[in-house]
Amino acid sequence: MRNWLLPEYIEDALPRDAYRIEKIRRLIMDMLFVHGYQLVMPPLLEYVESLLAGSGSGMNLRMFKVVDQLSGRMMGLRADMTPQAARIDAHLLNTNGVTRLCYASSVVHTVPDEITRTREPFQIGAELYGHSEVESDLEIQRLLLECLAVSGIQSIHLDLGHIRVFRSLIRRAGIRAEFERELYTALSAKDTSSLKELACTGLDECLDKTTREALLLLPELYGDQAILTYARQHLPDFPEIKNALDQLEYVAKVLQPYVDKVTFDLADLRGYHYHTGMVFAAYTRKSPVAIALGGRYDEIGKSFGRARPATGFSLDLKLLSRLTEINDYPQGILAPWKPQDQELAATIKQLRDAGQIVVAELPGGNSEEIVGCDRKLVLQNGKWEVCQLSECG
Amino acid sequence: MRNWLLPEYIEDALPRDAYRIEKIRRLIMDMLFVHGYQLVMPPLLEYVESLLAGSGSGMNLRMFKVVDQLSGRMMGLRADMTPQAARIDAHLLNTNGVTRLCYASSVVHTVPDEITRTREPFQIGAELYGHSEVESDLEIQRLLLECLAVSGIQSIHLDLGHIRVFRSLIRRAGIRAEFERELYTALSAKDTSSLKELACTGLDECLDKTTREALLLLPELYGDQAILTYARQHLPDFPEIKNALDQLEYVAKVLQPYVDKVTFDLADLRGYHYHTGMVFAAYTRKSPVAIALGGRYDEIGKSFGRARPATGFSLDLKLLSRLTEINDYPQGILAPWKPQDQELAATIKQLRDAGQIVVAELPGGNSEEIVGCDRKLVLQNGKWEVCQLSECG
Repeated sequence: MRNWLLPEYIEDALPRDAYRIEKIRRLIMDMLFVHGYQLVMPPLLEYVESLLAGSGSGMNLRMFKVVDQLSGRMMGLRADMTPQAARIDAHLLNTNGVTRLCYASSVVHTVPDEITRTREPFQIGAELYGHSEVESDLEIQRLLLECLAVSGIQSIHLDLGHIRVFRSLIRRAGIRAEFERELYTALSAKDTSSLKELACTGLDECLDKTTREALLLLPELYGDQAILTYARQHLPDFPEIKNALDQLEYVAKVLQPYVDKVTFDLADLRGYHYHTGMVFAAYTRKSPVAIALGGRYDEIGKSFGRARPATGFSLDLKLLSRLTEINDYPQGILAPWKPQDQELAATIKQLRDAGQIVVAELPGGNSEEIVGCDRKLVLQNGKWEVCQLSECG
Repeated sequence: MRNWLLPEYIEDALPRDAYRIEKIRRLIMDMLFVHGYQLVMPPLLEYVESLLAGSGSGMNLRMFKVVDQLSGRMMGLRADMTPQAARIDAHLLNTNGVTRLCYASSVVHTVPDEITRTREPFQIGAELYGHSEVESDLEIQRLLLECLAVSGIQSIHLDLGHIRVFRSLIRRAGIRAEFERELYTALSAKDTSSLKELACTGLDECLDKTTREALLLLPELYGDQAILTYARQHLPDFPEIKNALDQLEYVAKVLQPYVDKVTFDLADLRGYHYHTGMVFAAYTRKSPVAIALGGRYDEIGKSFGRARPATGFSLDLKLLSRLTEINDYPQGILAPWKPQDQELAATIKQLRDAGQIVVAELPGGNSEEIVGCDRKLVLQNGKWEVCQLSECG
């Protein structure tokens, strides 16, 4: 009966929140535009296979499914827009050079995120395709920092990781997929006792001493610049690992002036299913959870038949809007109901053209009840003038 | 296998289209804002009962359903945002005075509209609650015309109807619900032969001569101002009908200067399930289908426990964007890869702050492949200057 109740973890954004979300949405989109990121609007619904391209089983469980009445096939409600942007880059734009895309719209999850507690984040993001070197990672990270700054987020902590560290250990040791998954699970959870157990089981099976020691070291490789030096000394001397550490050092050096703090986490395997290179997360003081995530994912296009180097970031605008300092909900000007008064009409038009909110009274309406106005139009010496409600009574 | 294929009647908006949609979205939203319409963002998913509040069975068939894994109840993917706005007015804002709301987001349908051929319109609309007289209908219609004008739509044809004409005939004759439905179906389809048959069957049952003649007259009451005069002479002399015709005449007179043509259609019963007063549709030359619809619906709030007078309009931004004259996709300025050059960095920042698109070249990238730039930054006499690609080679 209580038709106005919403499902759990599903919310309306009421005017004040919606205004702030819309404002930040425009600020971020304009920032992306002037950096050459072109807007795309992929659909809310697609065939499940397209939406799951390159993603793990976690995504599948988080995705609502419906039957397409026109084809009988399963469609999914997008839970992430990144694969959609990759599909557009791979097949619709189909250039060989660098492509920069951005998007901003809702995604839906079957279950809420543990910390943000919503099932409908508003995802805004930027993706850069066609460039595989660290400079494009850097461009994406700087862009994210610009977007956070323009949104009024202060004191940003950037956490950097690199999927190739763990992956090169796995590849070099010839670890089979099932065992890789177990190691990945233990490492993601920073569950060192399981990891120790696995590494020893691994020893019985195939793990050499170098790999075992490196895997057990990874969870400790978290912290500031000093960690990179330590990692260089104690991780195996593979060129991929050296290159990954070089990339991290380079990026951190360039970005240092723009953030409060840069840290490294070599056991950060978030998005391991599709990420292939440097990954990053941005934090700010008031949020217990990352406010933006991103990284390199060079393989997703493959499932659309055209692998392209790719790196990007995305964030939840609803979460961000709760953290921003922006709080300037605009108040309007009340105009009396005088449909015949041409001068009043002209004054109202002028004010609105200048971006002022003018709320027209309606006959029989109770102007006392009009919310959101702090001024009104009054006739003074034959001219319509704006005055403060408190002053002109 | 072909993961990049989309379901039928589901489309991506690629950069040029997306840019135009975003541009018109902002123009319309700003127009709504300065008129005092406050933005709300209702969720994509709600319990089915809330979404169907006050609507007919047609809506139910057009709505995708999913099971809520947290409650086991059915949720629907919104097919229309109007009931969501009404729910917010009735329960969350809960003021007694006039409330003005607007919204802009995607809705989804199980089957495509016959003419627009899409299953995912982008709905933007405005709703005015708490005022039951014709002045609020007029405000909404003027607002719609302003929104169409700012979107670059020329030569608008406004078609007006009034649900109370048909409804008062039904009520006064005491026609029971089932028979009302049959009459409604025949009349909506302008199926005069069925209508004649029904009206005579009706005669045997309960239809008096006045009602019968009036019902048979309705499908002919389509045309310009003269139709109102004719209707006054030939429809029964009920006060509700007189009042409806007065409202139509008043609104048409005020709006005449702002549109190409105003017509009337007294058999227009679109949205009969929830509309209760004046209804309207806007057309433009290049579209075979109405580009905006709206009208009064004073009863929807009832199913949320609080009936409120209500009138509003909505339109599909994707459809609108294909009809607009706006076509100014902006080109960018290509900047060379020189990370150490502080002056270049300052020039780029200046240009971007001024709203110019500056695309940064990446090392190893092929600048020939960069699309969307018609200018580039070159060093001339020690200063970074913008020049046309065609001129500076």
